[in-house]
Amino acid sequence: MARYVFGADVGGTTVKIGLLTEAGEKLDFWEIPTRTEDHGKNIIPDIASSIRAKMKEKNIEDSDVVGAGVGVPGAVNVDGLCYQAVNLGWENVNVVDELQAELKLPVKAGNDANVAALGEAWMGGGQGYKNLLLVTLGTGVGGGIIINGKILTGAKGSGGEIGHIHLVDDEPETCGCGKHGCFEMYGSATGVVRIAKRVLAFSEEDSVLKDRSFECKDVIDAAMSGDKVAERIAEQYGYYLGKGIAAVATVVNPEIIVLGGGVSKAGEGLFDLLRPSFDKYVFHGCADVKFALAKLGNDAGVYGAAKLLLD
Amino acid sequence: MARYVFGADVGGTTVKIGLLTEAGEKLDFWEIPTRTEDHGKNIIPDIASSIRAKMKEKNIEDSDVVGAGVGVPGAVNVDGLCYQAVNLGWENVNVVDELQAELKLPVKAGNDANVAALGEAWMGGGQGYKNLLLVTLGTGVGGGIIINGKILTGAKGSGGEIGHIHLVDDEPETCGCGKHGCFEMYGSATGVVRIAKRVLAFSEEDSVLKDRSFECKDVIDAAMSGDKVAERIAEQYGYYLGKGIAAVATVVNPEIIVLGGGVSKAGEGLFDLLRPSFDKYVFHGCADVKFALAKLGNDAGVYGAAKLLLD
Repeated sequence: MARYVFGADVGGTTVKIGLLTEAGEKLDFWEIPTRTEDHGKNIIPDIASSIRAKMKEKNIEDSDVVGAGVGVPGAVNVDGLCYQAVNLGWENVNVVDELQAELKLPVKAGNDANVAALGEAWMGGGQGYKNLLLVTLGTGVGGGIIINGKILTGAKGSGGEIGHIHLVDDEPETCGCGKHGCFEMYGSATGVVRIAKRVLAFSEEDSVLKDRSFECKDVIDAAMSGDKVAERIAEQYGYYLGKGIAAVATVVNPEIIVLGGGVSKAGEGLFDLLRPSFDKYVFHGCADVKFALAKLGNDAGVYGAAKLLLD
Repeated sequence: MARYVFGADVGGTTVKIGLLTEAGEKLDFWEIPTRTEDHGKNIIPDIASSIRAKMKEKNIEDSDVVGAGVGVPGAVNVDGLCYQAVNLGWENVNVVDELQAELKLPVKAGNDANVAALGEAWMGGGQGYKNLLLVTLGTGVGGGIIINGKILTGAKGSGGEIGHIHLVDDEPETCGCGKHGCFEMYGSATGVVRIAKRVLAFSEEDSVLKDRSFECKDVIDAAMSGDKVAERIAEQYGYYLGKGIAAVATVVNPEIIVLGGGVSKAGEGLFDLLRPSFDKYVFHGCADVKFALAKLGNDAGVYGAAKLLLD
C-alpha cells in the first residue's frame, strides 16, 4: 500500500503544506497563514493541526504516514534546531522536537533553500541526480547543496549559503549581511538592477532603460527585445553569475547545477550568459557539469521537506 | 575482540600502509615502493601482497579484518573509480574492484587529500568533529571536506579541490591547472615565495631575504626573527589564506578548520595572520569556527584510508 508523507514550507506570510505519496505524487497542496505574533509560537501548532485535519478529512491513519518534514527561513542544524528565523520571530526553536510533540509522528526539518534543493533533486529540474547545486536567483541569491542524495547542512545549518561568498573587491555598497562584494549583490534580481544602473551611468547609447525606474524583469525584457545596452548588462550579469557558481562548483563538484528563483524565468539563455565566465573560473575536474532550470517553482520546498523523511 | 583494519596511502614513490584497530590504535605502519612502471599495474597487487604478508606475520584471520582502505593521488568517485593519477601512471583504474579481487576483503578508496581530512577528523587535529575542513598548505593547496562524518566526494571525486577556487583577478602568472589567480598560487609554500618576491621588488627596506634565493621556510624564519619585510610578507600571505578559506567555509559551514602541510609547521601564529581577512570575508553564519593544526602529519592518509571502512 502506498504510504503518505507531508511537507511544509514555512514562509513569512503563509505556510505551504503538501500531502504526497512516498513516490513523490502530489495529492493535495494547500496553504495556511503564518501567525508570526508572540514570537511565532502558534506556527508549529498550526502546522500540526492542519496536518491532523487533513488526515481526518482523507481518512489517513497514523500508520499510513511516514512523517512530516519542514523547511524554515533560517539556519537549522542537523538536530532540527533553528537558531533564528527573523521573518517568523523565532530564536532557538527546535522544530523537530516541537512539531513531533504536537503531531506524534516522525518529523525532520531543514533550511528552506536547502530543502528546496532536495525537492528539485527528487522531483524537479535535477531529478535523478545525487550531487546537485541549486542556485536560487531571487531578491537575494540562495543556495542548497545536495551531496550523495543528502543536504549539506554544515555545522550550524549555514551550509549552502552561497549568496555570501565574496566575489568582488572594492565594492562600495553594503550587502544585506553587512559585508561588501558578496555574490548576491550581483547575482540576484537586485543585482541585475545594480549592474544595470552602473552600465547606464557610463553609457551614452540610447536604451529603453534610460531615465526611468525599472526592475529586473524590465532589464531582461529589454535584453530579449534587442536593446543593446540591456544586452551588455545581461552579459555582465552572466559574468558575475558564472564566476560565483564556479567557486561553489570547484568546492563541491556537483553533477548538475539547477537555477531557480525569479531571474531563472529568463530561461535557458542564462546558461549561455554564464558559461564563458563559469568555464574561465571553474577547476577543470569540476567543469563537466549540466545546467538545468528548476521545475517545481514555489512547490520545491514542500517536495523537499517531504523528501527529508524518505532517506 | 578487537578487530583490525588496514589503511594504504599511495604516493608517487612509496605506499604507506598501516595496521590499526577499529578504535584507531596504531599497531604497525610500514612502507613499500610504488612501482609506477607499466602504467602502475603492480601497485594494487603489491598492496594486496603486503597486507596478506602482514596478516600472516601477525596471525590475523580474514574474519578479524574489517577491510582495507586506499587513498590515491587523483580524483576517485564514490564507486572507487580513479579517473587519472598522473604520478602513478593510472587512467580509469577502479581501485575498489581491483584491490578487492586481489585481497578478497572489503575495500574502499578515496582521493588522498580527502582521505587525509577523514584521518584528521578521526584521530588528528579535528578529532571529535563531524564537519571539518582540512586545508593542506604544501607545494600546492589541497583540501578535504568532511560533512557529517563523511567525505564530500562530489560527482567525479573532485570535491574539496579548494586550491583552485579563483581568488585574485588580473593575475599574470599561470597556475599549475592552467588558470590564473587560483587560491593555491598564494596560499601554498610556492605562494609564500611568490608573495615574497613581489613585496621585495617594491620594498626599499633592508631584509635578510634581499638579493638571494630563498624558500618558504626562509621567509617564515625571517618573519619569526623579526625581519620587518618578512613580517609584511607574512601578513599578505595571511590575507590570501584567510580570504580563500573564508570562501570555502561560507559554502560548507565547517565546525573546525584544520591546517596541515609544510607551511602549517609555522604553527598557531598562522591563525592570527589569517583571522582578519577570514573574518572580513566569511558569512556571519559560518564565522563561529575553530582553527587547529593537523596532528597526524604523513600518517593522516593511512588513518583516513582505514577509517573509510568504519562508517
